Amino acid sequence: MVSLEQIHDAARVLNGNIRVTDLIQAPNIVPNANIYLKCENLQVTGSFKIRGAFYKISQLSQEEREKGVVACSAGNHAQGVAVSAQKNNIKSTIFIPSIAPLSKIEATKSYGAEVRLIDGVYDDAYEAAVKYYKESGAVFVHPFDDELVIAGQGTIGLELLRQLPELDAVIVPIGGGGLIAGIATCIKNINPRCKVYGVQAQGAPSMVNAMELHELHTLDRVSTVADGIAVKTPGSLTFDLCEKYVDDIVTVTEDEIATAILTLIEQQKLIAEGAGAVSVAAAMFNKLPIANQNIACVVSGGNIDVTILSRVINRGLMTSGRLSELTIELLDKPGQLKEVASTIADLGANVVRVHHNPGGKNTDINGCYLKVSMETRNHEHLAEIKKALENKGYNIIKG
Amino acid sequence: MVSLEQIHDAARVLNGNIRVTDLIQAPNIVPNANIYLKCENLQVTGSFKIRGAFYKISQLSQEEREKGVVACSAGNHAQGVAVSAQKNNIKSTIFIPSIAPLSKIEATKSYGAEVRLIDGVYDDAYEAAVKYYKESGAVFVHPFDDELVIAGQGTIGLELLRQLPELDAVIVPIGGGGLIAGIATCIKNINPRCKVYGVQAQGAPSMVNAMELHELHTLDRVSTVADGIAVKTPGSLTFDLCEKYVDDIVTVTEDEIATAILTLIEQQKLIAEGAGAVSVAAAMFNKLPIANQNIACVVSGGNIDVTILSRVINRGLMTSGRLSELTIELLDKPGQLKEVASTIADLGANVVRVHHNPGGKNTDINGCYLKVSMETRNHEHLAEIKKALENKGYNIIKG
Repeated sequence: MVSLEQIHDAARVLNGNIRVTDLIQAPNIVPNANIYLKCENLQVTGSFKIRGAFYKISQLSQEEREKGVVACSAGNHAQGVAVSAQKNNIKSTIFIPSIAPLSKIEATKSYGAEVRLIDGVYDDAYEAAVKYYKESGAVFVHPFDDELVIAGQGTIGLELLRQLPELDAVIVPIGGGGLIAGIATCIKNINPRCKVYGVQAQGAPSMVNAMELHELHTLDRVSTVADGIAVKTPGSLTFDLCEKYVDDIVTVTEDEIATAILTLIEQQKLIAEGAGAVSVAAAMFNKLPIANQNIACVVSGGNIDVTILSRVINRGLMTSGRLSELTIELLDKPGQLKEVASTIADLGANVVRVHHNPGGKNTDINGCYLKVSMETRNHEHLAEIKKALENKGYNIIKG
Repeated sequence: MVSLEQIHDAARVLNGNIRVTDLIQAPNIVPNANIYLKCENLQVTGSFKIRGAFYKISQLSQEEREKGVVACSAGNHAQGVAVSAQKNNIKSTIFIPSIAPLSKIEATKSYGAEVRLIDGVYDDAYEAAVKYYKESGAVFVHPFDDELVIAGQGTIGLELLRQLPELDAVIVPIGGGGLIAGIATCIKNINPRCKVYGVQAQGAPSMVNAMELHELHTLDRVSTVADGIAVKTPGSLTFDLCEKYVDDIVTVTEDEIATAILTLIEQQKLIAEGAGAVSVAAAMFNKLPIANQNIACVVSGGNIDVTILSRVINRGLMTSGRLSELTIELLDKPGQLKEVASTIADLGANVVRVHHNPGGKNTDINGCYLKVSMETRNHEHLAEIKKALENKGYNIIKG
């Protein structure tokens, strides 16, 4: 089992090699709690993963160092291992599935790792990595189910208790469970009254299931924008530590994650990846009993592909009622477009896109559909606009 | 003139009311300089403006406090004044042009200000604000041309010299000039060898012109995505301080600003608004002699409208060759789409969107245009793809 002493040792080793990330107050995210963000998205490599990888690699024997390390990852772990190996002057070979975004592959290479692209998904790359380490004798750096890796992640707990001694609870994203296992071990051994909560994506609830059934299972499939925590099987070490220390685990939906990402951008000027934002989503959407408490949400990483980012922003705007779409049936006669446009403008919404199409088989042959995208204040604002249009006799098909 | 003593006094007043923002190292932005970011985007209200507004408001007499304050702004200054007034228990009335984004209006209201929306642009709102303060006797809080406001912004200089004593130069965005006037006054009075550089958007070069001509002029029009520094006339106080203290002022283009915003998102997980990113753009695009030096780029704010953000991201991706578009002429015969797709895939690019349209009046009547959007590594990668397609006989119309 991981001990508090190991975590203290990890903190000594990491000192000067990683950032002590800021704990930033987020006053406008949840009305009735004091929310702080532990910004591991501002960590070197853009995620907490370097903590565990660096500590693990720092503890290798001279013989192991000479054989180098191997890892398998499509994301943050790859970068954490690559930088840690580089800083320790050790060779690293990282197996990455070919479906990974170009940006992550390039980043891993830029940190000096030898990247092997494997056709297929994570499991294919994992298989290739296992084959390689058996042949080469290189040390396999597991992304979460490893005592030293867990101890490294646990250093976040030490920083939290130092940065905010009056902490009541910490909310932590869970994929394989390494992050929460480390933080919970640290916090419960120092201040058992401080709650430790976990969050998973609804589309990848492996640890939730394990806690309910009190044993590990493998999910058939995982599906979430939070690719960093899309893990089919949690670790067994991490599961044991969760059983021992974690107070509760909840899930959040895809729309909740997107809204949290958007809120972090607008309110805090911070980029979080999906996995990094689930802790904030859980706080925002009342999944946990945090009223009037001092809460730290661990924002575990910020490595979101920018091409995905704009899609997420749009989803978040829609979920919060800030971007709205209406499809309105128009008769093909003059003045209708003008009337719709001025009804919307008079109510203070801002039209950003209009599509004007011939109607389908259910409309009058002269009819057409007007699809309007607009910036609105909230869902009530949209309802007001719909009502005004309906009062003027328009048929709203969708929205 | 503003004095170092005033800046020290401002720092005492601001202590506990604003954040001492982090100076975060940005190792991968410029290959041959040590770049640090002074993150005023993480400041309360998302920009540095609260420093000057708070100090100004804190120095009002009891009589002035009772009459309240008035300001005019479409953006950061509005929020800075609103929060400062709220924290000092003073009434604030903020005039905002109706073209301002909904999000900024809502934010200003949420800080307790009375918002008056004025039809038109900034100048219309300014006129209304002047009329109001003449009638009401409320104190007008100027966004930049005010000694106390400048002294407040200057506190950033004190923080910089404490956070990085070996600082060689600081790069500062310029709109009206309040930020750089304060920082330059501070730094040149403490360490005259440290350089102070200013940056403006190419579409709003008011201070550049003023420094060249040694007198103030008003630009006919300003046009830039960096709305926070789109100022037609700099201040006269700020201009005098720039003449006295600032080493050089350069400009950056819209594409350079977009690329800087994108780089801050990807490398640093930070959201900067256009005005906040010009300092980083100047460093990235070699506008200043900073090789082998310790450089602080002031990221002055992060209040960018999210609807603008995704457009900026796309522009930045295109400028850096990471998102590319090709329009290819196809003959209307089987197998062409497949051949183009596999040529692109074989070279490792990722197609994200395809439009397949009938050709225009210059193509064969059976011809058509294929417009392909794809993720590429860089401009060389795109050139490689174009060459491969041309070698197979395709005519590239655009790209």
